Amino acid sequence: MTSSAAIWDKLENLPRPTLGELFSAVRDGGEGADEPGGAERVAMLSDRIELGEGGILFDWSKTHLDRAVIAAFEELAEAMDFTGMRAKLFGGEVVNPTEGRAADHATLRGTGDEAKVEEAMALIDRMGMLVDAIHQGALGEIEHLIHIGIGGSALGPALGVDALSRDLSYCDVHVVSNIDGVALEAAFAKCDPAKTLIAVASKTFTTIETMTNARSALKWLADNGVSDPGGRVIALTANPEGAVEWGVDETRILPFQESVGGRYSIWSSIGFPIAMAVGMDDFRVMLAGAKAVDEHFRDTDGAANLVLRASFADLYYSRVRGCQTRAVFAYDERLGLFPDYLQQLEMESNGKRVTADMQPVDGPTAPITWGGVGTDAQHAVFQLLHQGTHLIPVDFIASVAPGDELDPAHHRILLMNCFAQGAALMAGKAGEDPARNYPGDRPSATILCDDLDAAALGALIAFHEHRTFANAVLMGINPFDQFGVELGKAMAKAIEKGGEAFDASTEALVKAAGLA
Amino acid sequence: MTSSAAIWDKLENLPRPTLGELFSAVRDGGEGADEPGGAERVAMLSDRIELGEGGILFDWSKTHLDRAVIAAFEELAEAMDFTGMRAKLFGGEVVNPTEGRAADHATLRGTGDEAKVEEAMALIDRMGMLVDAIHQGALGEIEHLIHIGIGGSALGPALGVDALSRDLSYCDVHVVSNIDGVALEAAFAKCDPAKTLIAVASKTFTTIETMTNARSALKWLADNGVSDPGGRVIALTANPEGAVEWGVDETRILPFQESVGGRYSIWSSIGFPIAMAVGMDDFRVMLAGAKAVDEHFRDTDGAANLVLRASFADLYYSRVRGCQTRAVFAYDERLGLFPDYLQQLEMESNGKRVTADMQPVDGPTAPITWGGVGTDAQHAVFQLLHQGTHLIPVDFIASVAPGDELDPAHHRILLMNCFAQGAALMAGKAGEDPARNYPGDRPSATILCDDLDAAALGALIAFHEHRTFANAVLMGINPFDQFGVELGKAMAKAIEKGGEAFDASTEALVKAAGLA
Repeated sequence: MTSSAAIWDKLENLPRPTLGELFSAVRDGGEGADEPGGAERVAMLSDRIELGEGGILFDWSKTHLDRAVIAAFEELAEAMDFTGMRAKLFGGEVVNPTEGRAADHATLRGTGDEAKVEEAMALIDRMGMLVDAIHQGALGEIEHLIHIGIGGSALGPALGVDALSRDLSYCDVHVVSNIDGVALEAAFAKCDPAKTLIAVASKTFTTIETMTNARSALKWLADNGVSDPGGRVIALTANPEGAVEWGVDETRILPFQESVGGRYSIWSSIGFPIAMAVGMDDFRVMLAGAKAVDEHFRDTDGAANLVLRASFADLYYSRVRGCQTRAVFAYDERLGLFPDYLQQLEMESNGKRVTADMQPVDGPTAPITWGGVGTDAQHAVFQLLHQGTHLIPVDFIASVAPGDELDPAHHRILLMNCFAQGAALMAGKAGEDPARNYPGDRPSATILCDDLDAAALGALIAFHEHRTFANAVLMGINPFDQFGVELGKAMAKAIEKGGEAFDASTEALVKAAGLA
Repeated sequence: MTSSAAIWDKLENLPRPTLGELFSAVRDGGEGADEPGGAERVAMLSDRIELGEGGILFDWSKTHLDRAVIAAFEELAEAMDFTGMRAKLFGGEVVNPTEGRAADHATLRGTGDEAKVEEAMALIDRMGMLVDAIHQGALGEIEHLIHIGIGGSALGPALGVDALSRDLSYCDVHVVSNIDGVALEAAFAKCDPAKTLIAVASKTFTTIETMTNARSALKWLADNGVSDPGGRVIALTANPEGAVEWGVDETRILPFQESVGGRYSIWSSIGFPIAMAVGMDDFRVMLAGAKAVDEHFRDTDGAANLVLRASFADLYYSRVRGCQTRAVFAYDERLGLFPDYLQQLEMESNGKRVTADMQPVDGPTAPITWGGVGTDAQHAVFQLLHQGTHLIPVDFIASVAPGDELDPAHHRILLMNCFAQGAALMAGKAGEDPARNYPGDRPSATILCDDLDAAALGALIAFHEHRTFANAVLMGINPFDQFGVELGKAMAKAIEKGGEAFDASTEALVKAAGLA
């Protein structure tokens, strides 16, 4: 079998036709003569995943993937034992060697090892019973939920609530993450303490931001006449003993598995606020949407696997074309938090410098994921996309069905702008003068949902979880640990403790802030 | 005079000491022996700008700027006639040659050509009178303001309101930008139509998103029993005739100058919602904070000019060290929108590929600006900052005074984490095993405000406006046009019109979405 280094070398040296050339149907019989152009190219690189009632179209034709590039990446997948690693992931085996853990998030969707799925379903059922009970008044009249968590315990809940509960919400949810008290005060200002629940979400139940915010939230309840503030707390954690010690009654603790990583935990009890806002039925629909992607990813080989195909393009741009970033623009207001969500998923998972077997990586790892919402971003950052000097692969995400009930012109203009941007990035235009010249040949992919419902959101997230995993496998790295965040935490504690010498700049800052 | 190409060449070939070496006080008498280390280095690269009552500390010591690099950039500034360009900017001369315009945003702060400042002050006074009149009830009982604008007409107002009106707001402001009707519906859900004003902000008064949203907002008022919806509209525009034609009464039109660019327009009547929320007095304090930075930037030469110093570091990383991004992390919940604001300011201004005299640029232009809020971002993306393979220059921004009134632990932990991250990025740590190894030598700058009040916000924004200008001058590009956004708009119109052939992917997407 060819070594991965030899395959990267081959990729580096393959011809680099422009997107215009790839789309051109006319071939001269030379190299690339069997490469399909035009509609055939779209047929080759654009496919749907069905989700029961609707589905999602994944169009990767406006990337520089061609048959030769795809063949080389399929060879790389073989060299990196992608099939074996995927089997380990879904088999519940250890895929996080530094921490000796499996990565069992898919079991919460019903995919994977039978015993683990059974355990996961019991956890989901337990959450469902509590959610339903609260909706039925078991904890009194509840109108507001302050969800306290950070990182993986905040971004998923915030995204899910924002995307799915605009039309109908059973509960007004405020996600508070920052240790800055300004964040918590903003939530207080919008909630009636007498009708407010506090969810405390922390995998370890020791996160300093979350525990500090939780204490201040309980104080706020007490200061505002709530007689049993502790009785208003729901704990969402993989450390139920820790929650008990902290004083949460066992009936209000919703555990999840140690083998579910923080940034993969939206499917677990960390998703409690989503279920509180949209109801448990819709939450289960979100899980089912993710499961449809699990099955596609698990059961499809080679570049027909849409997740793996996306990964090929990701790695082609980051490793062969030198792109340090990739951008995601959701042409849908409801997905405003999706780029932030992906930022964590991808950068925390794959922002690594050693391989899973502890060797230095042989190339760049995760690019910086950034982006925003269309059409807003067109008026803010697209200047650079079209005329800047950096090549940036872009994903566009949109929904055919509108999310609004205003004049249909709103949604029509939204979608036309989305499609026009991808077309313009690729086509470019020779300008009347150099300042009006657009070089074109800039790649994009388009993800088009029939509708942005709970199933589609679940599918979109699962697609990107597996895409992140596929990227990691092809780079040979472990996407499931995150030791990079430990040093900063340790140094913050050392500053707090005092007595240790830091660099002169840090010492001057600590002094200027009156902390020492 | 040395050519800019020769200076870039020199910069490329200068020694590259690590941050650790730069901070080390011990020198061996060889190259760099006159380079100050430790506290002397901090003294050299850390200075304050005073803003009347408070001030801001700008610490650039944890970047790779050293005497040799600074000297080369000072030479570059001379070669690019930085002093002359700056004089043109503040003299109201044409600095936007492709559009034949001056860039007069500083006149709104009282800085610049006397006649232009006088004109600007009259515009500010006019806005002040309307704001005060509305606050005093001239338009009836007003509790809500729906501000409709996009890009430069949205990001500034949203930032200003979010940063400054948390403690006390005269008016509940909702900024709506997206053409997606979901955005406008979200604002409707939070406003009582009988007590709502509509601000329509568009420099040209033709922006399709804004005019579509404005029409739907008027319809909503009418549908909800407001007898004279048009009477509730305030127009913020450089095209007052257009606003009159659209039906806005002249008394409710707040004009601003054609020579103020959209992304530089927060100081103009585009800032109306900020003044509505915080009052005209605080708005003027914001202008005064910006003026203090104008004066520092205008009157200080060489690297003692803190704005120019920041620009030296920016260009060193983007052009010499190959960084395609720079990151901004505000350790303050109130600055949550600041990275988005800077993204537009920097990327739309300097994401260019030709020089001001229409030659291809001789190196990369604006990097991708991205970032977020601390401590949230520590739990999301800092893994990659510490252990990824990309070098990313980081700015940290914080305030010594807290924004909250909770337990002081909140703000103390916030600041300690901020300083610890900069320290950790620089120091790194040899790990017990490769997965726990941190390479260090990663640069950061820290901007520490005494307090995050209106003056500081104005100063922070003006600092970055001038930093963007300085970067442009040193690269030889025009930061004030944005032709890169035209092609996408033209293609969206062509799709809407129909009859034109596009690439096969775009045609398939238009068809899949049922638009053709």
